Amino acid sequence: MKLLVVNGNTTDAITARIAATARAAAGPGTEIVAVSAPFGARVVGTRAEETIAAHAVLEAAAAHHAGCDAVVVAISTDAGAAAARELLPVPVVGITEAALLTACALGGGIGVLTFGARAGAWSRELVARYGLTARLAALEALDTPPSAFADPDAFADPLLAGVERLVGQGADTVVIAGAAFAGLCQSLQPRAPVPLLDGIACAVGQAELLVRLGLPKPRAGSYAAVPSRAVTGVGEALRRLLDRDGSG
Amino acid sequence: MKLLVVNGNTTDAITARIAATARAAAGPGTEIVAVSAPFGARVVGTRAEETIAAHAVLEAAAAHHAGCDAVVVAISTDAGAAAARELLPVPVVGITEAALLTACALGGGIGVLTFGARAGAWSRELVARYGLTARLAALEALDTPPSAFADPDAFADPLLAGVERLVGQGADTVVIAGAAFAGLCQSLQPRAPVPLLDGIACAVGQAELLVRLGLPKPRAGSYAAVPSRAVTGVGEALRRLLDRDGSG
Amino acid sequence: MKLLVVNGNTTDAITARIAATARAAAGPGTEIVAVSAPFGARVVGTRAEETIAAHAVLEAAAAHHAGCDAVVVAISTDAGAAAARELLPVPVVGITEAALLTACALGGGIGVLTFGARAGAWSRELVARYGLTARLAALEALDTPPSAFADPDAFADPLLAGVERLVGQGADTVVIAGAAFAGLCQSLQPRAPVPLLDGIACAVGQAELLVRLGLPKPRAGSYAAVPSRAVTGVGEALRRLLDRDGSG
Amino acid sequence: MKLLVVNGNTTDAITARIAATARAAAGPGTEIVAVSAPFGARVVGTRAEETIAAHAVLEAAAAHHAGCDAVVVAISTDAGAAAARELLPVPVVGITEAALLTACALGGGIGVLTFGARAGAWSRELVARYGLTARLAALEALDTPPSAFADPDAFADPLLAGVERLVGQGADTVVIAGAAFAGLCQSLQPRAPVPLLDGIACAVGQAELLVRLGLPKPRAGSYAAVPSRAVTGVGEALRRLLDRDGSG
Amino acid sequence: MKLLVVNGNTTDAITARIAATARAAAGPGTEIVAVSAPFGARVVGTRAEETIAAHAVLEAAAAHHAGCDAVVVAISTDAGAAAARELLPVPVVGITEAALLTACALGGGIGVLTFGARAGAWSRELVARYGLTARLAALEALDTPPSAFADPDAFADPLLAGVERLVGQGADTVVIAGAAFAGLCQSLQPRAPVPLLDGIACAVGQAELLVRLGLPKPRAGSYAAVPSRAVTGVGEALRRLLDRDGSG
Amino acid sequence: MKLLVVNGNTTDAITARIAATARAAAGPGTEIVAVSAPFGARVVGTRAEETIAAHAVLEAAAAHHAGCDAVVVAISTDAGAAAARELLPVPVVGITEAALLTACALGGGIGVLTFGARAGAWSRELVARYGLTARLAALEALDTPPSAFADPDAFADPLLAGVERLVGQGADTVVIAGAAFAGLCQSLQPRAPVPLLDGIACAVGQAELLVRLGLPKPRAGSYAAVPSRAVTGVGEALRRLLDRDGSG
Repeated sequence: MKLLVVNGNTTDAITARIAATARAAAGPGTEIVAVSAPFGARVVGTRAEETIAAHAVLEAAAAHHAGCDAVVVAISTDAGAAAARELLPVPVVGITEAALLTACALGGGIGVLTFGARAGAWSRELVARYGLTARLAALEALDTPPSAFADPDAFADPLLAGVERLVGQGADTVVIAGAAFAGLCQSLQPRAPVPLLDGIACAVGQAELLVRLGLPKPRAGSYAAVPSRAVTGVGEALRRLLDRDGSG
Repeated sequence: MKLLVVNGNTTDAITARIAATARAAAGPGTEIVAVSAPFGARVVGTRAEETIAAHAVLEAAAAHHAGCDAVVVAISTDAGAAAARELLPVPVVGITEAALLTACALGGGIGVLTFGARAGAWSRELVARYGLTARLAALEALDTPPSAFADPDAFADPLLAGVERLVGQGADTVVIAGAAFAGLCQSLQPRAPVPLLDGIACAVGQAELLVRLGLPKPRAGSYAAVPSRAVTGVGEALRRLLDRDGSG
Repeated sequence: MKLLVVNGNTTDAITARIAATARAAAGPGTEIVAVSAPFGARVVGTRAEETIAAHAVLEAAAAHHAGCDAVVVAISTDAGAAAARELLPVPVVGITEAALLTACALGGGIGVLTFGARAGAWSRELVARYGLTARLAALEALDTPPSAFADPDAFADPLLAGVERLVGQGADTVVIAGAAFAGLCQSLQPRAPVPLLDGIACAVGQAELLVRLGLPKPRAGSYAAVPSRAVTGVGEALRRLLDRDGSG
Repeated sequence: MKLLVVNGNTTDAITARIAATARAAAGPGTEIVAVSAPFGARVVGTRAEETIAAHAVLEAAAAHHAGCDAVVVAISTDAGAAAARELLPVPVVGITEAALLTACALGGGIGVLTFGARAGAWSRELVARYGLTARLAALEALDTPPSAFADPDAFADPLLAGVERLVGQGADTVVIAGAAFAGLCQSLQPRAPVPLLDGIACAVGQAELLVRLGLPKPRAGSYAAVPSRAVTGVGEALRRLLDRDGSG
Repeated sequence: MKLLVVNGNTTDAITARIAATARAAAGPGTEIVAVSAPFGARVVGTRAEETIAAHAVLEAAAAHHAGCDAVVVAISTDAGAAAARELLPVPVVGITEAALLTACALGGGIGVLTFGARAGAWSRELVARYGLTARLAALEALDTPPSAFADPDAFADPLLAGVERLVGQGADTVVIAGAAFAGLCQSLQPRAPVPLLDGIACAVGQAELLVRLGLPKPRAGSYAAVPSRAVTGVGEALRRLLDRDGSG
Repeated sequence: MKLLVVNGNTTDAITARIAATARAAAGPGTEIVAVSAPFGARVVGTRAEETIAAHAVLEAAAAHHAGCDAVVVAISTDAGAAAARELLPVPVVGITEAALLTACALGGGIGVLTFGARAGAWSRELVARYGLTARLAALEALDTPPSAFADPDAFADPLLAGVERLVGQGADTVVIAGAAFAGLCQSLQPRAPVPLLDGIACAVGQAELLVRLGLPKPRAGSYAAVPSRAVTGVGEALRRLLDRDGSG
């Protein structure tokens, strides 16, 4: 099986970190192809950048999904994931959605740890968009210095303290909602009282599950394959995917 | 006062229709500048196109907002409106959000009429995103032939029948959620038993209200002005708006 | 345009303050007529007084709306506003509802600051009644000495401290829910990190917007014009408005 | 034990019907005193009349509660019940609230049958105000000719048909929400597939329960006894209840 | 009238305490029969034990309900109450559900005090299951040493401190959710600022109310009498109740 | 990897069908051990039977989980799954919960098809318990003759008609919520317009995912390992699992 992982940020170092985490989580025989967003912000941190990233994720998914069995959108806002799910013939999984659903499967209240002051509001909005607000025990946006994004391991102690605060508010699991912190969960897990959920690992597992279930692309509803449509000013791969019969 | 109206679709004929409706609704002394989306779909009708439109709206708003007192995002999905609201120094209003809030102000249950089979799901999601699901009495996605978008007036009878069905389900007002149908409300109103809300007219009025209130750009929270950020691969105006000090 | 502003309290000094705020907020050409509640409490502070005020607002609105284009109900509980909206042929706006809807239009989480220990519960109930609980980030009932109602300006510092606490809990805007504090927002705004919403100013703007939209009185639904009905023991204007054909 | 039953309508024939139903439901040793609203509508049927009724209920409760152990507010909108609960030293029960809570105690989904086209919207709002929307399986506002209010028994067949429709939509119990139909439940019950809940009977039982529990008037919170307050223009009994120390 | 009270715990000392509280709360002429769970945990404190208790409650209710007019399930989780309600021909009342509904009848926000760290999560889930989350002002799981269950009276001070904290968060009433603490409310009430609700007392009162209303067993819906069904491996009384015609 | 699948019904033929479906869904190297409930109903169809089944599932899980990496609870009500999740050291997955979460991962509105008139209410309650009501587009309880449970394949046409009705109400996926119909999805899928989700297949995939994630048993929260507790009257394996140190 081959999974395309699209980093919604343009920073290749984060893409590399994501790819390594994805490979560590993947089952035997699963190949990971990872690409960065073709345009947008180095590390998405505002609503405006998230909007640009959503488009960039679509472009990257259109350009690179051929030959892949599923796509993982690797950005904590799941930017562009729902649109890519509608557009592509293969399953598309967002990392935060995957982590939240895995938390649901483990039972009880969910804690969400996000990074940077602005991230709190939109993480809460994202949980609401997935209809999971009733499952949210607590959410905290950790004050995160830029250095933390560069060297996530040095940020372990504040992160664990945040986990403990969430557990004190009723979290039975904690989602670490930041692509930049991919892979950190595994090293911190022994020191945490509840399961820590890494979006990349959860999304890779969920993508594998969906591929194995072999469900068809819906022919009805709001995720059905889109009819051929004319668009202008987008990348060639995306244009061809939308305007399949050139009649647009 | 000068308002920028950004059509999220690329079709100039729709932009012209929107501009005319906006001008008819605007108060004396309010000037309307209307632009089409610089790229994307002629008439947005899928999640993928909506994602592209959100980016396109940001580009257009960045390029044309100078000298304007507020921005109206004129597409039934309010694509890019929240991001533009964060990004720009002036108020930003989405047409469907404005119509929904006006419906709230009139009291009772809200009916929403959308156009095209796929539009039902995302309209419902949009209402949920605004936290207004409890106010929604009924929502219907009218089966809409392409000809209806070209000649909205010929579509009056099916539209009014839809309004009647919504009223029968408890709607005290009906939001006509489609930029392509801008201006139709006024001619149909005499035949409808409840107020029909045109997003363009509501948004222009709400933009004027916000400008007159003279509220400052927030300095805290998730809509505060964004710090200077480096981005690549976006339009020059948008890039400069994000990377204000060139240090990104 | 002429707006009737009905103070739900019987204190004329508060009515004067409200009228001044309304005039400052009104557009050019908008005339403000302000009246006090004809009976009830000096400053409504209990559920019982609120119930009396709702009736008193109806009486005042019935007696004074002739010749007015819209009515603003100026009491933080919006007492009687929904009933007046059903009863009268012109738009009726409550100040707290108007402030909450304006906060929605600005985006993000809403903070509400109320005055007096008992006010917290009913403000929360009011937000729920408007279906806006999902938008409420935080609500605080400020411990308010009677002197504060007499001299609102001396209460600026505790009020601003309350605003800061609400912002710390996720408020992107703060509604100042107290008719007695009308007009205070403008002087405090420069010291606040997010927009402060004065119900009077928001309601005047919203009333102007609704008048300009020119929507008809609904002929169906729960806000349609009431049929002629006999009532006894109410004021003459209200009785005549309900028992229009004298057949009651 | 002695219960005051306040009819929110001014029609004495309805009061008599309510009193008979209350007496039939009361336990041995429970005395029923029933009074009509001192002013307002014959049969409340609009929001405006409901607002007047709430005040009238407060006046009647203030004037007649002395010597009573609890008060039942007998009008389907529970007009004035919450305010009376705050104001009086004894328990206050609304008939629709009592029926809804009894339905909760019986388990499953609740059906609500209301009378008159306008009643649907406000019944739904009432259920929401009690926080019970999640329990509501279905609600129907029966088209009810004025003759039905005069001769409820002749209305049995349409009413039972409505009950069947609600059961078909998941109702495990049906609340008959209309004071005018008090007492009808008992005769219709044998023909109904689920329990029919009469607000008067439920409210009398709940009032008896609360009296027997002997709980104190709260000293904190939003239902605590109100401090002495000056009011003008209300009935003498109500004025004295609010302005207990004459210092208002 | 005769009520069966089923303790979901196996500890007879708790059953005795429950029986005494029930008798104190019962009206004149109400007889109380109390039994312990026939198997399971001494004091239920985990989800697993609660699951066993639900079955045990069903067995005890099946074995002992003959001749009783209603059944009270006396365990803070209401284990087995909904199933017994479906199964038995008489009303079944859970103690926490009864206390929550009584709290609703008193108005305002509900506080819930539970005992033991694990109890917080499931109490919150229970409130949600009853659809009453919107009424919940605050919930606290008191850290409770085993000694407190043995000698509840010695636990009065921490319990009252918990009540005060809940009131500070908006509780207008406080439900004491622990069968082991039955009867404690009455002695603590004078020291508490809001009504304290004892599940046993509330449930006995509610069972009496339901018996007096004389409602029939539903013939439709999800609580209708179950058809005869074959089961194996359960107690004889329960088997015979399910497999009534021996044809299972 | 070895998975224990516990059928909550006592019918071995259903267990065999479930086991076959599970084996077909399992990845290479996953071994399936399937057991029937040791006591209870042949096919659970009432709340009472579901309560017995929950206990029976716990007993079976306790008796057979040794050596297994995860447990699947195979009954449409997920009876006992949450309790087993708390009790056991390995992940526990319920089939309906797994199908619902997989539906979430596919995006959009969820349709649920249940079997037998009584199943509708509790399926809706189950969805609510998982906090997923906002995702539920439509739910239908198919009138299902006993013969359908015996020969599911003969029931294909009514089932597909039900799927179409759910899609017409906004379902983007349909959960087939009945263990007795395990395996039917695969043969019906080609005729259905949206993905059909079989709980067994989804649960096996989710169990494999959770095993591969290698998350620890929580040490805090409401799913943490239970302390040693004394219980009586339960099976030996369950007793030993609860009373680990014999000190209970």
